[in-house]
Amino acid sequence: MAGAGSNNRDITGWAARDASGVLTPYTYALRETGPEDVFIKVLYCGICHTDIHQAKNHLGMSNYPMVPGHEVVGEVVEVGSKVSKFRVGDTVGAGVIVGCCRACGPCKGNIEQYCNKRIWSYNDVYTDGKPTQGGFASAMVVDQKFVVKIPDGLAPEQAAPLLCAGLTVYSPLKTFGLIKSGLKGGILGLGGVGHMGVKIAKAMGHHVTVISSSDKKREEAMEHLGADAYVVSSDADQMASAMDTLDYIIDTVPVFHPLEPYISLLKVDGKLIMTGVINQPMQFVTPMIMLGRKSIIGTFVGSMEEAQEMLEFCKEKGLTSMIEMVEMDYVNQAMERLERNDVRYRFVVDVARSKL
Amino acid sequence: MAGAGSNNRDITGWAARDASGVLTPYTYALRETGPEDVFIKVLYCGICHTDIHQAKNHLGMSNYPMVPGHEVVGEVVEVGSKVSKFRVGDTVGAGVIVGCCRACGPCKGNIEQYCNKRIWSYNDVYTDGKPTQGGFASAMVVDQKFVVKIPDGLAPEQAAPLLCAGLTVYSPLKTFGLIKSGLKGGILGLGGVGHMGVKIAKAMGHHVTVISSSDKKREEAMEHLGADAYVVSSDADQMASAMDTLDYIIDTVPVFHPLEPYISLLKVDGKLIMTGVINQPMQFVTPMIMLGRKSIIGTFVGSMEEAQEMLEFCKEKGLTSMIEMVEMDYVNQAMERLERNDVRYRFVVDVARSKL
Repeated sequence: MAGAGSNNRDITGWAARDASGVLTPYTYALRETGPEDVFIKVLYCGICHTDIHQAKNHLGMSNYPMVPGHEVVGEVVEVGSKVSKFRVGDTVGAGVIVGCCRACGPCKGNIEQYCNKRIWSYNDVYTDGKPTQGGFASAMVVDQKFVVKIPDGLAPEQAAPLLCAGLTVYSPLKTFGLIKSGLKGGILGLGGVGHMGVKIAKAMGHHVTVISSSDKKREEAMEHLGADAYVVSSDADQMASAMDTLDYIIDTVPVFHPLEPYISLLKVDGKLIMTGVINQPMQFVTPMIMLGRKSIIGTFVGSMEEAQEMLEFCKEKGLTSMIEMVEMDYVNQAMERLERNDVRYRFVVDVARSKL
Repeated sequence: MAGAGSNNRDITGWAARDASGVLTPYTYALRETGPEDVFIKVLYCGICHTDIHQAKNHLGMSNYPMVPGHEVVGEVVEVGSKVSKFRVGDTVGAGVIVGCCRACGPCKGNIEQYCNKRIWSYNDVYTDGKPTQGGFASAMVVDQKFVVKIPDGLAPEQAAPLLCAGLTVYSPLKTFGLIKSGLKGGILGLGGVGHMGVKIAKAMGHHVTVISSSDKKREEAMEHLGADAYVVSSDADQMASAMDTLDYIIDTVPVFHPLEPYISLLKVDGKLIMTGVINQPMQFVTPMIMLGRKSIIGTFVGSMEEAQEMLEFCKEKGLTSMIEMVEMDYVNQAMERLERNDVRYRFVVDVARSKL
């Protein structure tokens, strides 16, 4: 605990240095623990597809060196003088956002993830003018507003993927009135977000259809994740028989894909919820949405309030993620495998046990 | 009235014969007035952009001869034995839809416009197996479910454009919680639907911005229609200063146009409401909707319940359409002018005074 004290701010993370996205050890200084800050010793950090986008500059706005990682679970080792929510020793989480303006409509409405001045947990600039760095590191200092308590009884390594993937699914279902049981939902794409989609929607009492490009994940989806149905999108008969049946689809596919086949699966008033950053225009024809009053909705993680609520929900429902635990020296291979979708379903880096 | 009796069902309408879309007189037989039917002598019929799409087979599903017209106001001259809502002499309206299955979810939910078995008022086949024909004709027989009462005090020629254009605006504002006063709305495109959009949104107490491709309609929008602001979409400065300001935009443009500039005008949770049938894919990039939880929503006219409610709303608010009245022998020129947007803002055919 001494090493994390205010006298030693130099820590090691694994950083991308250029658009190759290859991570290597990088030493940098954390800021002093301010009155509102929580100093977190990182225990676990999930690997999200967005980490790849950022590390490899797919969005054209990357700054290096960059320490990715935004599904962070850790232990509180120091708190600022005004921190009341957390105590030393607490298991806590941090996610995609570490700052906001606190004055705009979204901030006042407690949906600070939509603040135009949001500060990303890495590849951004903090209020002190220094770069933010993420969770592939031994420690982070995070404003208490952006820290959540990991409920007792929820395994911390399990909680990591909830902080982005889980929240990404939970928030729109709650916001758009889609949490009541008996709804019929679709999950498009069975990656990190998709597998949490199946689990969270099932825990809400929904009938869940997984829509996938091939038959490969059928057994996985039905038997291990508990989906109720499985539709192969390239199979015209299967798609036709699922037409007009779904209240919503959570679209987790982070690359270009046609939307019409999925819009046609929605009932009247059905919602296609887009969660993936796709760097290419998506397309739709107006009659397809007009003649069923359908919506194409964008959503972006969730609020801190929702994050805490989602964690409690997962604990209460006994809901866990499916993860493959790796150490930091495997992070580059893990990102390569994630990029080709070769993981069931989320890599989590065991940061505390890794040699950084 | 004798000529409209059950012994003489032969009437004259103006029909398109092929994809040229040119309308010429056409004689056909109306069905007998069934127990649930209302025989309507047509007084006025508005010309909607969809009439052009249909007459010219832009959607690839036109059948000829086709009598267009779906903004119909007329006088009841005969009612079926089970018709209780209407009496001979009533001024009534008919719109886009004249039939539905009455058994599906949307029908049971009184949003029969979204029934997959909806019957269009023309270019469709009725339950008797015969083609439906629209309001550019001396008379129509319509099931009472699809007839609305034109409230006393609302001029019948003024009411015609309300039955499609007015309803197209009113329904989504009501459905998506956008009727409370103080909202900031945008109206994209100032044609038949757009001008009703300005008037209805203003009557709801909204701050209304008209977004147009040129400065041409500024005076019209601000001074005659009562808009609060006017933004030229090609003017980057004007667009930039309107960013993040609107709760919704009603997009009435019936041809391809980029969506991103308009999505950027929406606040967090803003809604882009698409009302135009566009026979070409529309595009958007996911981060633009994700980072503001924005929705792209399709909507299609409104229900019969909403139609009646909207007419009462218009009467109560003293709200009228802006129309140019023509006779039937001008209908082809009128459609040509409408196609190049040369009308303020809706043509209405004075059918009763026309020589058919």
